[in-house]
Amino acid sequence: MLKQEIDTPALLIDIDLMEKNLETMASFFRGEKGTYFRPHYKTPKSPFLAAKQIESGAIGISCQKLGEAETLITAGITDVLITNEIVGDYKIKKLISLRKHAPGLMVCVDNIIPAKALSEEALKRGVKMPVLVDVNVGQNRCGVEPGKPAVDFAKEVSKLKGLELKGFQCYHGTLQVWDQRHGLEAKQQEMERSNGLIVETRESMEAAGLNTAIVSGAGTGTYKGQYHVMSEVQAGSYILMDWKYHITAPEFERALTVLTTVISTPARDRFVVDAGDKTASTDSGMPILKDVEGYEYGTAGDEHGILTPKEPSRELKIGEKLELYPSHCDTTINLYDRYYGIRDGEVEVVWPIAARGKSQ
Amino acid sequence: MLKQEIDTPALLIDIDLMEKNLETMASFFRGEKGTYFRPHYKTPKSPFLAAKQIESGAIGISCQKLGEAETLITAGITDVLITNEIVGDYKIKKLISLRKHAPGLMVCVDNIIPAKALSEEALKRGVKMPVLVDVNVGQNRCGVEPGKPAVDFAKEVSKLKGLELKGFQCYHGTLQVWDQRHGLEAKQQEMERSNGLIVETRESMEAAGLNTAIVSGAGTGTYKGQYHVMSEVQAGSYILMDWKYHITAPEFERALTVLTTVISTPARDRFVVDAGDKTASTDSGMPILKDVEGYEYGTAGDEHGILTPKEPSRELKIGEKLELYPSHCDTTINLYDRYYGIRDGEVEVVWPIAARGKSQ
Repeated sequence: MLKQEIDTPALLIDIDLMEKNLETMASFFRGEKGTYFRPHYKTPKSPFLAAKQIESGAIGISCQKLGEAETLITAGITDVLITNEIVGDYKIKKLISLRKHAPGLMVCVDNIIPAKALSEEALKRGVKMPVLVDVNVGQNRCGVEPGKPAVDFAKEVSKLKGLELKGFQCYHGTLQVWDQRHGLEAKQQEMERSNGLIVETRESMEAAGLNTAIVSGAGTGTYKGQYHVMSEVQAGSYILMDWKYHITAPEFERALTVLTTVISTPARDRFVVDAGDKTASTDSGMPILKDVEGYEYGTAGDEHGILTPKEPSRELKIGEKLELYPSHCDTTINLYDRYYGIRDGEVEVVWPIAARGKSQ
Repeated sequence: MLKQEIDTPALLIDIDLMEKNLETMASFFRGEKGTYFRPHYKTPKSPFLAAKQIESGAIGISCQKLGEAETLITAGITDVLITNEIVGDYKIKKLISLRKHAPGLMVCVDNIIPAKALSEEALKRGVKMPVLVDVNVGQNRCGVEPGKPAVDFAKEVSKLKGLELKGFQCYHGTLQVWDQRHGLEAKQQEMERSNGLIVETRESMEAAGLNTAIVSGAGTGTYKGQYHVMSEVQAGSYILMDWKYHITAPEFERALTVLTTVISTPARDRFVVDAGDKTASTDSGMPILKDVEGYEYGTAGDEHGILTPKEPSRELKIGEKLELYPSHCDTTINLYDRYYGIRDGEVEVVWPIAARGKSQ
């Protein structure tokens, strides 16, 4: 099947570019770096792509949700870190059930109440649950404060007999594209501040005799400046990318596009395509037209987009299929059930997005 | 199962409120109005809810996508208007296939090239395809211009032997919440202008001997001020609503919420919940906390939200489940596979969202 024969809207991966991204990141972690790579599944949500990441040298996979972990573990990928807090009786029971089939499963904790519940469930089911203490190193979302509060909390956690303390998590999400908001210099400063908190926390935990074998964090926008203060890096977007992240990390290619059709050409100042808010997320800006120079995409509702000619290199034709670069890969991918993997203009493979909608 | 036992994030419908909305709209169209109701499926995307709308008096269902129409027709709901242009060989073949199983299926056209292709395919398959001419009455998206251009195009369409001209569509999307952007008076003016274009187009088409049996348009934000210039109204959001549409149409209750859990309470100034951009859309603003006064929700990434205490009526507890009103029902619903229908605090029914992700 040719790319142009795919029904629209559809989500495409340029396989050559994706493989280039896999190799770019894998080669960074090869050699004497002393830091491992545990790519994040919240972006691609496909066990087939996760398997490629492990083939290319990753020591395991990161994910955000229990439902995501389930799709990995049932696909045979069992070295999984849930980079998030798992709270509530139902989820804790499910987590321990998964743990029985995935000895490499780990989870984050930042509150003693769910940590105790997790420990009790683990003991009841005859397993130990490996955990990382989640530490706030600048994002101000989840996580205990670094330094002494982290040490105090880790001590409490290490007393819980159903848990096995493996280290801590130190992810700073807003730092990833800090350069786009505040400039490169400000990003460097914030990164140094955050790295300082990470080192301080590791040293304090070690001084207290606490395990810091795993220090997990960083992303596509910070791996180069943070890998040296951690034992593993969690970057996810690098494999497929979007136009926005590409500004910060241009070493990775934009391998992901939305295929769309021109469905209406009612006037010379607008060309309507069948891709709207339900097919390309706009939380990080509008998609950008890939193929033809001089058009600007704007959403025109849930099912429509309008391409406005600015300095158009040519006219667009009714029925023509075009590709859009999404502004945010994660939330766009989560709208689709499958990827069409394209090479040399043909569909080479269709990959199910097994964790699409796995928000629980 | 109690509401509080549902795993999170989850999408809930308050059945009492939904039934009230169904009745509020149904009662509006009862009696001597002379206008029918054809509710839009792009919002609820569930054939079970569409069936309730037909039970309550709707003459059929509107939808945007062929994939949506398919989920209706395979569920036995065959009076379906696709309020959109269907373009491209594959889609046209599929449309005519569906037409053979749904004599009440109609579609919009605004360009002679796909209209001819549609006619040819219909002739080849031995059916007539009922169509509406899509007319631009102010939204400036799809549609031919009103008045003479619409008449000229409708004449061309009526010559195509595989098509059966049934009338025209006159939907003005941006008019729905025009009041929130420009004020009520400006909305009234724009509505009168749009209604004038609709009447002019109908009269011109009638004068030219063209069929105007169906004049279809309006939404939850305009049905009261537009029903009298059309034969049927397409409102969709009214059945479930969101907080934003509720400002414009307060006669309908906010029956839809996202159930979320407090998963981290790291500081007194923030409470982290497990609902982010992948579980509540933000294209029309942030969700609003339903249960507890004095907290403001802000997205904190794809999987997290932060509730910031402003004038909090009480503390939030780790593990506590809360409900959020989405800002935009359509794009939020499209993230979920099922609704939990709640009555008196218990799960009464689970409705699959059959057309979730049916963007093709």
